[in-house]
Amino acid sequence: MNYRLTLQYDGTDFHGWQIQWGAQRTVQGELTRALSLLEGRAVVVHGAGRTDAGVHAVAQVASVQLAREISAEKLRAAINGNLPRDVRVMEVEAVSDDFHARFSARGKTYQYRIFNAPVMSPFWSRYALHEAHRLDIERLQSAARLLVGEHAWTAFSSAQSEAKTHTRRVTELEVREDWSERGSGRLITLSISADGFLRYMVRSIVGTLLAAARGEISEESIKQALAERTREAIGATAPAHGLTLWRVHYD
Amino acid sequence: MNYRLTLQYDGTDFHGWQIQWGAQRTVQGELTRALSLLEGRAVVVHGAGRTDAGVHAVAQVASVQLAREISAEKLRAAINGNLPRDVRVMEVEAVSDDFHARFSARGKTYQYRIFNAPVMSPFWSRYALHEAHRLDIERLQSAARLLVGEHAWTAFSSAQSEAKTHTRRVTELEVREDWSERGSGRLITLSISADGFLRYMVRSIVGTLLAAARGEISEESIKQALAERTREAIGATAPAHGLTLWRVHYD
Repeated sequence: MNYRLTLQYDGTDFHGWQIQWGAQRTVQGELTRALSLLEGRAVVVHGAGRTDAGVHAVAQVASVQLAREISAEKLRAAINGNLPRDVRVMEVEAVSDDFHARFSARGKTYQYRIFNAPVMSPFWSRYALHEAHRLDIERLQSAARLLVGEHAWTAFSSAQSEAKTHTRRVTELEVREDWSERGSGRLITLSISADGFLRYMVRSIVGTLLAAARGEISEESIKQALAERTREAIGATAPAHGLTLWRVHYD
Repeated sequence: MNYRLTLQYDGTDFHGWQIQWGAQRTVQGELTRALSLLEGRAVVVHGAGRTDAGVHAVAQVASVQLAREISAEKLRAAINGNLPRDVRVMEVEAVSDDFHARFSARGKTYQYRIFNAPVMSPFWSRYALHEAHRLDIERLQSAARLLVGEHAWTAFSSAQSEAKTHTRRVTELEVREDWSERGSGRLITLSISADGFLRYMVRSIVGTLLAAARGEISEESIKQALAERTREAIGATAPAHGLTLWRVHYD
């Protein structure tokens, strides 16, 4: 039986998604341990995508093949019973054999959060970047519009990227402003959807939009970075803890 | 100079508000340490009210008299520079000498959160009670209406209460239902305002409303507990981590 799992995790205390052979605590590692225990043999868990150390997930998707047949609800309870509290299987669904969390994915949405107030709220310090100076939301939105569409994202990715092509289509880049009642401050959310992401791409985009909003780089140099594919003209990679994998899209 | 401080704290890793002479980490203790360091002598920090171990605050209020005159903004930065990350001074205001965080307070508002979904979201596990079975919101609201008004809250307080009178006026008890996008689940918020609270009173009220919603106790026995002032007929005290001190009210 092939199962699709929808997962939430608070990435603060994980060294990212990908399993590591050593002492590092990872989400895939915890999930593999819990499922192998249930199955009585080592199983392979596929994730829709790797999230880096410190990155959170509201709806990461994983797939796994199990020999034992078990109802979705019982499987969910059994896995959660063997997982630490900072990662939870929210949904389990029995799916057809050809479903694969990574290869079946058509795209993803990430959210990046910025707490934009003089003092960082303790309720956001694990989940948002703190920016003390007031950000110009129009500048953020204007710079964001430059990035929507199909581009070669070479300038916005790790130099060590192993991806065959750097071309990805950003289908949406929305900048939203809310009032966080709980944090008593301004919360800015960047929501970024694409058919795929290179490593560090979202955090590079966020760093660049922030630099543009602060007036440190011009829109002209963003266009140039896209066209000439060089990292010099773009902003620093934004820190991991503001980032959340929000949705994985399937047909 | 007399200063009024507005504080946020994540209560998870604190043994409550009140300073304890020993190794226990408390909010008043941390604040006293930071302010005494600034002032160069021991200072006394008054809080609007004591919160128990594990209880959070979105806007706790404290007052302190300092010899040194310093701008509100600089004082805020100086205190925060000496505080751990899970407590922050959000606002500082110079106030007249007769302001006292506790004696000047006219009332308080607390919020209690319940994450009401089959699986607990890692994003709410520090800040909300988990209730797996779907709660009947009408039952919660109906039971809540019984408690609004002036009552003797003897049945809803600690037996060791030192308060001179158990009479308090609950001015508002609102039950709200939201969808938590981040937690992908139903979030129920109880918002309770009163001119004062006895120890454990909010958590006793919440436990009683939950018992009523689950059908474990009748509205009749709630009325009886209020009238006869006996604890037997009411629900268990709800756990601390779902509770947040939301506002302190002044004239």
